[in-house]
Amino acid sequence: MPRVEELDTPVVTIDLNVVEDNIARLQNYLDGHGIKNRPHIKTHKIPAIAHLQVAAGAVGITCQKIGEAEVMADAGIRDILLPYNILGPAKLERLMALARRVKLSVTADSEMVARGLSAAARRAGQDLTVLVECDTGFNRVGVQSPEAARDLARQIAGLPRLRFGGVMTYPNSEAAGKFFSRCLELFREAGIPVPEVSGGGTPVMWQAHTVPGLTEHRAGTYVYNDRAIVRSGAATWEQCAMRIWATVVSRPTPGRAILDAGSKSLTSDLLGFEDYGHVVEYPKARLHALSEEHGHLDVSECEKRPEVGEQVSIVPNHTCVVSNLCDTLVVVRGDRVEGEWPVAARGKVR
Amino acid sequence: MPRVEELDTPVVTIDLNVVEDNIARLQNYLDGHGIKNRPHIKTHKIPAIAHLQVAAGAVGITCQKIGEAEVMADAGIRDILLPYNILGPAKLERLMALARRVKLSVTADSEMVARGLSAAARRAGQDLTVLVECDTGFNRVGVQSPEAARDLARQIAGLPRLRFGGVMTYPNSEAAGKFFSRCLELFREAGIPVPEVSGGGTPVMWQAHTVPGLTEHRAGTYVYNDRAIVRSGAATWEQCAMRIWATVVSRPTPGRAILDAGSKSLTSDLLGFEDYGHVVEYPKARLHALSEEHGHLDVSECEKRPEVGEQVSIVPNHTCVVSNLCDTLVVVRGDRVEGEWPVAARGKVR
Repeated sequence: MPRVEELDTPVVTIDLNVVEDNIARLQNYLDGHGIKNRPHIKTHKIPAIAHLQVAAGAVGITCQKIGEAEVMADAGIRDILLPYNILGPAKLERLMALARRVKLSVTADSEMVARGLSAAARRAGQDLTVLVECDTGFNRVGVQSPEAARDLARQIAGLPRLRFGGVMTYPNSEAAGKFFSRCLELFREAGIPVPEVSGGGTPVMWQAHTVPGLTEHRAGTYVYNDRAIVRSGAATWEQCAMRIWATVVSRPTPGRAILDAGSKSLTSDLLGFEDYGHVVEYPKARLHALSEEHGHLDVSECEKRPEVGEQVSIVPNHTCVVSNLCDTLVVVRGDRVEGEWPVAARGKVR
Repeated sequence: MPRVEELDTPVVTIDLNVVEDNIARLQNYLDGHGIKNRPHIKTHKIPAIAHLQVAAGAVGITCQKIGEAEVMADAGIRDILLPYNILGPAKLERLMALARRVKLSVTADSEMVARGLSAAARRAGQDLTVLVECDTGFNRVGVQSPEAARDLARQIAGLPRLRFGGVMTYPNSEAAGKFFSRCLELFREAGIPVPEVSGGGTPVMWQAHTVPGLTEHRAGTYVYNDRAIVRSGAATWEQCAMRIWATVVSRPTPGRAILDAGSKSLTSDLLGFEDYGHVVEYPKARLHALSEEHGHLDVSECEKRPEVGEQVSIVPNHTCVVSNLCDTLVVVRGDRVEGEWPVAARGKVR
């Protein structure tokens, strides 16, 4: 096996030592607080890493799309939450096929979605667990109030073949805590048991124990971490497992270095940053623009500057979207290459 | 075959009627001005479409990475320009293997890159054509002055197994025209023939005839077009071949619609826009934010508003990067589905 420096670029590496550490650290924290761990596999999309998470103590996994869940079920994962409004005959049929193979739960935020799930579950002759997704300030999907959560839970509980599975939100926050507290009061008054209170998010993972009533936490990015997670304070640079290795292919001017990794390797996700990643060897360099196959690096603030042919490594702003660009990742331990793993659930948008 | 509205979402469609039209229109224009057409396949990454371009009159194609060129060579394309600084033993070996199979030319912007190409060509016992890449204001790779272009051309012509193939830039502009004019003067004085003067870019394609000395034009996006090209004035909405079809999965508030297509379907490329695409059916809707699997649509300015379960279609800001997310595209003619085509050169970053 080659050493990391000998890999042809651009190439994405994952340090398995760091991954194992990240998995153990969050599991220990959640175990210590009696909160179930249900990691989101969108970050890695690799069955072998999902199995590492389950082996470490995760109750199951979270997938965002049915296609991801199918890949993970095929690979032997047995407990999957799909926090997504599933609509339409093609997806509902695949959903119920999945529900026959694994312990499956989904979410809904409207009666229309719940009715579609119930009809599909009846057709399939198979029960389905449905949580109510709550919008606790992220302004994405979700019911808008604890009262609406209770009403939808009642509807779900009353629909054939559906079981009410609890409430979920993304991400955890103080507002989410207040929303859940009020939910739990209302459900108690209404006599509706709430099996799970499911929260999520990597930046807020170390505060999961402060969310009232939380029974389960979903984090994705923690398995690799990235520049945005370091900025949030939830991880250090040393806890970032992913690097994009690139070669300097041009030094047209003293202040400019052009890399062979562009938006096809790093994506255009800024996540609030002003440039496209953290260059480990040249922390003062600014990756200020990306073409599809070129990274535009301003090295004018660097004392030592990279030369043509030199390799640099980048911690991406957002690791999950980089995984989605890769057919395979190179797995390393330190600077030793262990092998190449397929990103089996890459590109599963349906 | 289903109709377009029956496809499971998110899904990317390409209208082949529009593609054929786009191919013919640019070919006719360039033919009329005696400029060779060498389309860039990064936009589609599909051999069948490259063959349509060649059949219409293109002299060959442009690829950005060796991996793309290998896919196209495998599919029978016989003339390829690779406008990229190729460095390192692994890539140089693949490059020379490709040079044995097809008429290949590459670019260089430094003596170091040219020397590496010469050494590889000598090892392979195979001549290689090398153009000088010029930075005419885009601030990416390229020599910085016409004088530097001449000097590098001399070095290339003097290196074993290399042939000087001309000058190239991206994109065409008034500054590029001035740069090329001065280059041609200097090359004439130096007695160096310039086989090709190669420019590129879709937004500027209809001005290609105004660039002094231009012999060849490379455009990629013109084959599909996108929102950025419509903004540039070089195409109309009707000339946009790609649509991302998405379903409204949630209407949490009167002004908010959430789609099942996010950054994994559309990418985060803004290209100067403030939102992530043009919604054909709701032109006043703003796709103001993307999660990986959710599109956040502000419909508050729309008189009629989409309902849960309704499909919408989006013209992306940047079509090339969307192709790179798709294992396959659905090919349609109008609302009739013709088939599903693999995006064979997707993800070829090396």
